[in-house]
Amino acid sequence: MESGVVLLENGNKTTEAPSNVTIKATLSLLMANLNVEKNKKKLISLGIGDPTVYSCFSTNLAAQEAVADSVLSGKFNGYNPTGGLPETRKAIAEYLSADLPYKLSPDDVFVASGCTQAIDMVISVLARPGANVLLPRPGFPSYGICSSFRNIEARYYDLLPDKGWEVNLESVETLADQNTVAVVVINPGNPCGNVYRRRHLEEIAETVGRLRIPVIADEVYGHLAFGDTPFVPMGVFGSKVQVLTLGSLSKRWLVPGWRLGWLVMNDPSGEFRNPKLIERVKKYCDVSGGPASFLQAAVPEIIRQTNTDFFANTIKILRQTSNLCYEKLEEIPSISYSSKAEGSMALMVKLNLSVLVDIGDDMEFCLQLAKEESLIILPGIVVGLKNWIRVTFAADPASIEEALGRLKAFCQRHSKQSS
Amino acid sequence: MESGVVLLENGNKTTEAPSNVTIKATLSLLMANLNVEKNKKKLISLGIGDPTVYSCFSTNLAAQEAVADSVLSGKFNGYNPTGGLPETRKAIAEYLSADLPYKLSPDDVFVASGCTQAIDMVISVLARPGANVLLPRPGFPSYGICSSFRNIEARYYDLLPDKGWEVNLESVETLADQNTVAVVVINPGNPCGNVYRRRHLEEIAETVGRLRIPVIADEVYGHLAFGDTPFVPMGVFGSKVQVLTLGSLSKRWLVPGWRLGWLVMNDPSGEFRNPKLIERVKKYCDVSGGPASFLQAAVPEIIRQTNTDFFANTIKILRQTSNLCYEKLEEIPSISYSSKAEGSMALMVKLNLSVLVDIGDDMEFCLQLAKEESLIILPGIVVGLKNWIRVTFAADPASIEEALGRLKAFCQRHSKQSS
Repeated sequence: MESGVVLLENGNKTTEAPSNVTIKATLSLLMANLNVEKNKKKLISLGIGDPTVYSCFSTNLAAQEAVADSVLSGKFNGYNPTGGLPETRKAIAEYLSADLPYKLSPDDVFVASGCTQAIDMVISVLARPGANVLLPRPGFPSYGICSSFRNIEARYYDLLPDKGWEVNLESVETLADQNTVAVVVINPGNPCGNVYRRRHLEEIAETVGRLRIPVIADEVYGHLAFGDTPFVPMGVFGSKVQVLTLGSLSKRWLVPGWRLGWLVMNDPSGEFRNPKLIERVKKYCDVSGGPASFLQAAVPEIIRQTNTDFFANTIKILRQTSNLCYEKLEEIPSISYSSKAEGSMALMVKLNLSVLVDIGDDMEFCLQLAKEESLIILPGIVVGLKNWIRVTFAADPASIEEALGRLKAFCQRHSKQSS
Repeated sequence: MESGVVLLENGNKTTEAPSNVTIKATLSLLMANLNVEKNKKKLISLGIGDPTVYSCFSTNLAAQEAVADSVLSGKFNGYNPTGGLPETRKAIAEYLSADLPYKLSPDDVFVASGCTQAIDMVISVLARPGANVLLPRPGFPSYGICSSFRNIEARYYDLLPDKGWEVNLESVETLADQNTVAVVVINPGNPCGNVYRRRHLEEIAETVGRLRIPVIADEVYGHLAFGDTPFVPMGVFGSKVQVLTLGSLSKRWLVPGWRLGWLVMNDPSGEFRNPKLIERVKKYCDVSGGPASFLQAAVPEIIRQTNTDFFANTIKILRQTSNLCYEKLEEIPSISYSSKAEGSMALMVKLNLSVLVDIGDDMEFCLQLAKEESLIILPGIVVGLKNWIRVTFAADPASIEEALGRLKAFCQRHSKQSS
């Protein structure tokens, strides 16, 4: 692990970054710890939310065909206009407007190379000397890494595990000051698998709106809600707070490698209109490149051709695999389970280190687990919660069953009772 | 035009940016000046190097098919590793090594969303408080715009029109100081259409190497040399100076919208190895997204399947269209032609404003030209040379003939003799 990493228990209001290590770098570290010679078990990774590894999570053929048709047409080899092709921006505006009480304009949409670039876009355009941004803890580490890369201070507010990972609004109010340029809210939640109730989203909008700060609404897992709480986009409250929505095709269409994302300015009343911000977004688009023109050109067809059965099937499998996770994790005494996942592709559980021997923290736990069980699970420190672990359930049921069986055996072997 | 634009004649060693206007924004301004009602002439744009508008510049079908096959395989929907797919990095390393006296490693290659993002990548990773970068004047405006966006000072050294647009090395030495992080060299040249002799490249490498500064070698027009001077990559002199090479498929494969580019670290002796710089490049890749995985996966096939006939045909047409430009521009007394283009897709010529009436500068010239002749040509101020114009010859011969006929008529109409 890098030096300078601050190891914190949840609840501490430090403004320091909990970790500056990427998920990818941590997974590489864990992979390097596999004991391939001694251990004949097949590698299973519940470490990253890349469902494409499992055949049950294939994108629909119509989407692939739309892209192939677009490139073969030879019509989309030229430069893209700033912000994206007009038909792409229009299709995304219409797609998102279906869940809003108002209509987005194509001009509100800026196409990006995946949600990853949309994060960099929004952080880069908000960056100015002395600026800070409020990030959730636990959260998606790209925000902290990007903020540090773009010289903007990351401050961490808490999500409350006992309240379904809701935003600690007091923590937000305490951390915000005149240099706070945005509050990031991820819903459905990564890494926690939570889906915020409509009322909670409204509370966030009201609180952050009162502070006159924009919300960056990360909805990359938008619509991937399979529990009792329906997905509501933050843009619904776009008249209470300036909402900058980030999203992509990656998760709902099961194509994280396609890198087709967006930044959307939700501003139905025009109250938060900020021409300077829009100019900076356009400048970012000009200097940074974006998705291939033929991929952009395929977006209207991808959205049009994907039928509801495809989405329903993904939801059905995620419901099944997350429930399976819940059942299997419940059986392990050294793991506490705070709440059932209702959305996204991952959840967080706490390690009861006091009942384990020879395991000092979550990183040691995951390194040892990789070595003994050929099983990759992400240590919570990477997403901001030391001594928790993040389990991805974007895997087929058989792999999850096998993986959590190994996890149980591992915990039993290392628990005080058995030693 | 934006306020704060500094209008300079060539030769002035100011460190201020000559313009902060993008090519796209300027073209929009010119397009808005078309007089579509009164003027029945068909719009011709020699304003941007996008050859895909003309059927004689179509990419080869094999390249399009390689991308279609890749996306239809369904194998490349998942996340890319940092820096790009290993097979993509390997194919680019081999492709570029063919012109070098040493072999690049796949690890030397970082895949980007086009050369545009490769520019942002290299500027972002070199940026630090107080840093400056030396840019050519005239040059490609993305460098200045990106530098300003990433808070790095742009200083402009001169290209010498009377010496085939060679780098004024004295100017480079005068401008460089301990905060200079790179010198940008564009070859084949955009906007000037020059191709540097091997000996001049060596002189640049020796001078900049002595200053212990890296060269950013923009070779996005690499191999597009059709005159007497062959294209030599700067990486040939990689033992004399640290060379960071930028390139893409855009120009040679006639697919600027595909956004598949690269940053390559040429360091055959290992002398310039800088682990911190490499770490920053990887961080940039992690935070910024990149090209779609299926597009990356198609690169080896695109390179393998493109036969030399395809490249030869492009060279043949560009030779023809650039020669046609030369002949036609020579006939216009109010335009001075400094040298024949030998590469890239554009050239620069000087306006003799003293023989024109009612035209104050290059921007007025181009605005009026758009209005009267439905002809778009880029004012030189956008690329750093006031009262010059940039003419793109990536168009079919008939369009160039027609366009330059209109340009001639326009100049005659506005010249003092005829008034």
